[in-house]
Amino acid sequence: MSGKEKTENDEKGVLQKVVAGEIAFRNIDKVVEDVDSAIAIRRNALEEITGTRFENIQHYTLDAEAATKRNIENMIGAVQIPLGIAGPLKINGEFAQGDFYLPLATTEGALVASANRGCSAISSSGGTNVRIFQDVMTRAPVFKLADVVQVKVFIDWINMPEIFAQMKEKAEETTRFGKLLAVEPYVTGNTVYLRFVFDTKDAMGMNMVTIATEAVTHFIQDEFGAIPVSLSGNMCIDKKPAAINTILGRGKTVIADTIIPAKIVSEKLKCNPKTMADVNYRKNLLGSARAGALGFNAHAANIVAALFLACGQDAAHVVEGSTAITTIEVTSNGDLYCSVTLPALPVGTVGGGTGLGTQKDCLNLLGVHGPGEPSGSNSKKFAEIVAAGVLAGEISLIAAQAAGHLARAHAELGR
Amino acid sequence: MSGKEKTENDEKGVLQKVVAGEIAFRNIDKVVEDVDSAIAIRRNALEEITGTRFENIQHYTLDAEAATKRNIENMIGAVQIPLGIAGPLKINGEFAQGDFYLPLATTEGALVASANRGCSAISSSGGTNVRIFQDVMTRAPVFKLADVVQVKVFIDWINMPEIFAQMKEKAEETTRFGKLLAVEPYVTGNTVYLRFVFDTKDAMGMNMVTIATEAVTHFIQDEFGAIPVSLSGNMCIDKKPAAINTILGRGKTVIADTIIPAKIVSEKLKCNPKTMADVNYRKNLLGSARAGALGFNAHAANIVAALFLACGQDAAHVVEGSTAITTIEVTSNGDLYCSVTLPALPVGTVGGGTGLGTQKDCLNLLGVHGPGEPSGSNSKKFAEIVAAGVLAGEISLIAAQAAGHLARAHAELGR
Amino acid sequence: MSGKEKTENDEKGVLQKVVAGEIAFRNIDKVVEDVDSAIAIRRNALEEITGTRFENIQHYTLDAEAATKRNIENMIGAVQIPLGIAGPLKINGEFAQGDFYLPLATTEGALVASANRGCSAISSSGGTNVRIFQDVMTRAPVFKLADVVQVKVFIDWINMPEIFAQMKEKAEETTRFGKLLAVEPYVTGNTVYLRFVFDTKDAMGMNMVTIATEAVTHFIQDEFGAIPVSLSGNMCIDKKPAAINTILGRGKTVIADTIIPAKIVSEKLKCNPKTMADVNYRKNLLGSARAGALGFNAHAANIVAALFLACGQDAAHVVEGSTAITTIEVTSNGDLYCSVTLPALPVGTVGGGTGLGTQKDCLNLLGVHGPGEPSGSNSKKFAEIVAAGVLAGEISLIAAQAAGHLARAHAELGR
Amino acid sequence: MSGKEKTENDEKGVLQKVVAGEIAFRNIDKVVEDVDSAIAIRRNALEEITGTRFENIQHYTLDAEAATKRNIENMIGAVQIPLGIAGPLKINGEFAQGDFYLPLATTEGALVASANRGCSAISSSGGTNVRIFQDVMTRAPVFKLADVVQVKVFIDWINMPEIFAQMKEKAEETTRFGKLLAVEPYVTGNTVYLRFVFDTKDAMGMNMVTIATEAVTHFIQDEFGAIPVSLSGNMCIDKKPAAINTILGRGKTVIADTIIPAKIVSEKLKCNPKTMADVNYRKNLLGSARAGALGFNAHAANIVAALFLACGQDAAHVVEGSTAITTIEVTSNGDLYCSVTLPALPVGTVGGGTGLGTQKDCLNLLGVHGPGEPSGSNSKKFAEIVAAGVLAGEISLIAAQAAGHLARAHAELGR
Repeated sequence: MSGKEKTENDEKGVLQKVVAGEIAFRNIDKVVEDVDSAIAIRRNALEEITGTRFENIQHYTLDAEAATKRNIENMIGAVQIPLGIAGPLKINGEFAQGDFYLPLATTEGALVASANRGCSAISSSGGTNVRIFQDVMTRAPVFKLADVVQVKVFIDWINMPEIFAQMKEKAEETTRFGKLLAVEPYVTGNTVYLRFVFDTKDAMGMNMVTIATEAVTHFIQDEFGAIPVSLSGNMCIDKKPAAINTILGRGKTVIADTIIPAKIVSEKLKCNPKTMADVNYRKNLLGSARAGALGFNAHAANIVAALFLACGQDAAHVVEGSTAITTIEVTSNGDLYCSVTLPALPVGTVGGGTGLGTQKDCLNLLGVHGPGEPSGSNSKKFAEIVAAGVLAGEISLIAAQAAGHLARAHAELGR
Repeated sequence: MSGKEKTENDEKGVLQKVVAGEIAFRNIDKVVEDVDSAIAIRRNALEEITGTRFENIQHYTLDAEAATKRNIENMIGAVQIPLGIAGPLKINGEFAQGDFYLPLATTEGALVASANRGCSAISSSGGTNVRIFQDVMTRAPVFKLADVVQVKVFIDWINMPEIFAQMKEKAEETTRFGKLLAVEPYVTGNTVYLRFVFDTKDAMGMNMVTIATEAVTHFIQDEFGAIPVSLSGNMCIDKKPAAINTILGRGKTVIADTIIPAKIVSEKLKCNPKTMADVNYRKNLLGSARAGALGFNAHAANIVAALFLACGQDAAHVVEGSTAITTIEVTSNGDLYCSVTLPALPVGTVGGGTGLGTQKDCLNLLGVHGPGEPSGSNSKKFAEIVAAGVLAGEISLIAAQAAGHLARAHAELGR
Repeated sequence: MSGKEKTENDEKGVLQKVVAGEIAFRNIDKVVEDVDSAIAIRRNALEEITGTRFENIQHYTLDAEAATKRNIENMIGAVQIPLGIAGPLKINGEFAQGDFYLPLATTEGALVASANRGCSAISSSGGTNVRIFQDVMTRAPVFKLADVVQVKVFIDWINMPEIFAQMKEKAEETTRFGKLLAVEPYVTGNTVYLRFVFDTKDAMGMNMVTIATEAVTHFIQDEFGAIPVSLSGNMCIDKKPAAINTILGRGKTVIADTIIPAKIVSEKLKCNPKTMADVNYRKNLLGSARAGALGFNAHAANIVAALFLACGQDAAHVVEGSTAITTIEVTSNGDLYCSVTLPALPVGTVGGGTGLGTQKDCLNLLGVHGPGEPSGSNSKKFAEIVAAGVLAGEISLIAAQAAGHLARAHAELGR
Repeated sequence: MSGKEKTENDEKGVLQKVVAGEIAFRNIDKVVEDVDSAIAIRRNALEEITGTRFENIQHYTLDAEAATKRNIENMIGAVQIPLGIAGPLKINGEFAQGDFYLPLATTEGALVASANRGCSAISSSGGTNVRIFQDVMTRAPVFKLADVVQVKVFIDWINMPEIFAQMKEKAEETTRFGKLLAVEPYVTGNTVYLRFVFDTKDAMGMNMVTIATEAVTHFIQDEFGAIPVSLSGNMCIDKKPAAINTILGRGKTVIADTIIPAKIVSEKLKCNPKTMADVNYRKNLLGSARAGALGFNAHAANIVAALFLACGQDAAHVVEGSTAITTIEVTSNGDLYCSVTLPALPVGTVGGGTGLGTQKDCLNLLGVHGPGEPSGSNSKKFAEIVAAGVLAGEISLIAAQAAGHLARAHAELGR
């Protein structure tokens, strides 16, 4: 469309055509040069069509031009989510070291206060240790072969070191940062899943590994003649709770633990280690086991979600990011040991929503915005912070539930 | 603290004391009357303490006073998430009937466009049927008894109709809307879980059922002498993926399906029914089965998360809200049948984040803000819309993956 | 075939024809009157065809005529499995009361000795409590409807009390003992599963409920027009490990527990309560959780299998019969509390292999052969015994593993 | 005890002492030289104590002396299980090639006949392909470390190539056949699981890997100072259904498939490929998914159990051995493709119950008794046969269920 034509379509005219159905919502950007104007037209058209009045979503300060290029289509405005702060939380990680204030975007009242209390208990006890045990992103295309005989031939071919070398070369041609670490085949009948395992450094990496994996599938098609039925065969597996991720890990596999002296448990958490261990045992272990759950924790999803929203992570990744196991034990001298294990935490400090203004503010607060030095260190640091935050959340909620029990038991005795 | 003392603490003074650690973040509200000022002090103190400069989070239009009462503590600002629109989507539900535009808050590029394409295919085909099969919210306190003999006595007591009647009375005294429907006992050794099942009308209901269940546990304590170890024993089970919820349901159990004529599959989705059915079979069914997954879908979590963020739902509820099963079948006359089954979708149109400005705009766009008439109808209507949206997302992504296969297979033949 | 023709086919002639492929193995019974002769011919023919010499399977004393009618086709002999005894085990159940000797058929060395040690520890401590919490057998046919609209109509129809009454009548016309307790519908898209729940008294009941359910499906076909795709839709679910059975129960849901004084733990199990609780915690709870397991126990399957083989139960039912949760706790005065929860134990004392000679001996030893008085009491008593046996097995193995740790730790200190 | 003393204890005297409780059941072997006499005394004592009369278990021909050394303690006789034959089944494996007759020990009427029909359909179609994709046995001791910092140090140490070399050496000193292939660490908080992965050749290998792993743990204790809490930490994981085994495999990972021409489906199975594919889809895939099942098959456990009992395998291993996925597809020319995938089939042809007479007969019938040439080939051949048998069972049962649907649909049309 020429500039002249564009001029003819003044904004009002465009609005009318959109309302009349002559211009599709997704085509407004093509006829209006200014992004914010396109957004306004779309919003106004929607108001006319649906008879709704928008009073809030038009108030945004985010860079709409950048957002419409990377993050959103058919943009009509923005949603605001309240942001609170918990901390300081003392973290003794390999990447995150020192005191951190956690930005939590949530609409669930009491969550920030609860996390804050957990941070206080941990920090008063010397902080939380955190360690990362694995850091990978995966993509698993699915192939259909003629029969299991062909499948065996295919797997044997895939497993040849020289084939892996060539796949690695093809994959890494598509990315500056990504490294192909392994290709793990799984079979069901005539159906083959190849789980490609990458190091994606500071990026969460789903896009990176999808592009790299696609390049490899072209190689496989050319050399072996197998065409993927789908580039994703759900053995990756993305945004679905699954044992393969809790067992083998995806994203960061990160664990945080701490020892809270009994005195601090009493003073800050109004409870005692033994009662908290019992709550964790009957609720998070036995209860989750009986419920057929993949998550053995109290509310890891709350903290993960609040940190993810604040820091520009993919909200749908809360699904696997929160499949945590929480343990509480009484130490030999009567103190409280607590750990959280997050087997599959997909996070990044570049790409996705990390470039948006408010999200950037939050990442900056944690000192992890953008690529790290060395590459990958920022996303690892962020993962350690998330795990530490989950630990704070677990300690606080379990203490609250345990204290509820204690209060009643005392009242009972006092009768 | 008196008004006079508050006046003495001028904002600058408070800031200095906060930075110096003399006033805790959570106590700023007590010494500063104006909510927005308290937020600014907190934010500024944080800047000083951490050496960060916030450039974006201070720009918000949400009603901070309301938010700090209901949704957030230690507020320092707000996060903005881009909002896009997909639709119209024609829905033939029992509560949602007609064309709907879906507000999607996301930072994942291409998601809105993909959903939009799915909406188009569905609407061109006459829309999607949606039905709700169950609508409950649960809370399961955990008790410890002496041994299995006592456990049996306890369960027999709980199962007495007159005891249920009394529990129902106690529960419903705490709520205007909630209705206790059932109490389901589960046992593991000496540990008993009582799963209280409520109808919570237009509220998502977690708070409502927690309060009501607590009241019942006081009755149990008084009458039977059993004190809960924890008010939640993880057989509720909230914000953790679990078979108990996918099997028995929690929140809304809602199913959407549609038939897309082969012609529309070809024209709008650049694919054919058979290839899409094959992708769904090898990826969503076989792949998920092999991965030990609870979710048998392509990317339900993406749509659920984007709608949840836009509409003030709890982001952590994406975990169970997205455990969907997607089916695709070729009909006897060669068209495409597609369904999504969401067994555990926890949603509400009152409470939580539904009262925030931008979220209210989005709920209004769907015609579901606040309590419905009759009570419960708005949340049911919203649940139908979410399921319909997930269906659109599934159809679009699976078609894209199938089309990728087709393109390659054609290229292969053309060599 | 007439008696005369049979006579003409003397055994040798038949053998030659079988070897020559003129008479199929399955037709030998039709041309040879004597069952044992038919078995011998089949075995001999097999020897000739395959060049094998059988030296053992021909030695059997079981009533082949009865077995070929009820239990086996193409019979060629019998397999012998060694039978050992563990006990006495003191059981304080509602049906099993007193001392029992457990017949265990196994080929795994040390299993009987281990179970025996567990029995001794329990009996010395006053025995084990056992309680049954549910006793049902299920069958779930699967239907395909046009779409979710029809599905809703179907479910609403099924849920009508008068329809249930009619289904109950149809079901119970087919059986003297079975009672239809409930019909639970589950839906996935256009696919409906109706889980029929029966009380089958002393029979394990799979055949009974299949026949009764089939009768109901004829009623459904006649009245509603829905034909089952399959009489079993795997939401029954039989002989597959599944959360639906561990959560809702199938067969008997039975729990056994006991308290072993620390002194007896020390003397008989060479261990202490705390170490055993720690092994159970890290192995059976945390380990199983991390492994994505449905079984949270040490080796319940060993005891279940050995008792099932001895007592004529279906060996394939070990799958769900063994999905147990084992708990070990240290009591407030330092003793050991241990429980096993078997959510889905399918057993019977009539039908199946319970009529075979050696199996009958074993059931008689436990006082549970045949129908109980009142009906159902024998299978319940047997279920209690199985749970008690599993408890003995768990205590013994966990103690052995814990003692291994202790021995090493002591040796370490002694250096 | 001297020969003289033994002589003094004549059998009758021993019996009286046993009944009186002066000699424990487990000590009878020490005072009676002849094994069969000891068995008789034990059985007779049991009759007196319990007032039972045994009429069948005393009739056994198995070598009691060998059995009491390897397979059983406190032996009182043997259980007989009817043995039937199905086949011939044409198998095109890498180890099993040709026609096989399957020995099936079961008490479930119609099972052998059903398997036989499946064998016939497969053999008429050219047989079944079978391939083994992995062959390992695992054992995973569990360790407790001080905290996650120490855990990281431990894991890093374990992952050093030179440490692996030393662990391999220690492990393989304990076994003539076993080879240590890998050590896979998993962590939950302060708890570490080391999954030792072995090739155990023709042995099922649980004992072998336990002994070898124990040797390695001594090395770990000496060199690193970590003592296992338990030699098995349930991430092995043995005799419990678990995702780790279905995903990563344990025992043999073996797949069988076949194509049955539509004509044969019609003639032999009274059905058609499309209806069978639909039954498999709605029952084995959708039904199992909805039930939260680990097994996606019709009745794999029946065939696995019957073959295991006949062939001296561990009956408790039916649990994981039967977690199969069955697929059925209609091929492009309208025929039936069917596969079964058994991810975790633990079998052996030496050790365990394989040396018992009747079991030996059955293994001989299959040509797989004892060690293979080369080592491991017999157990692989047996695994291929089991998978082929499961395929036969699945095809037959699914056809029967599908035919039931067809019969009704035809009757409906004929009205």
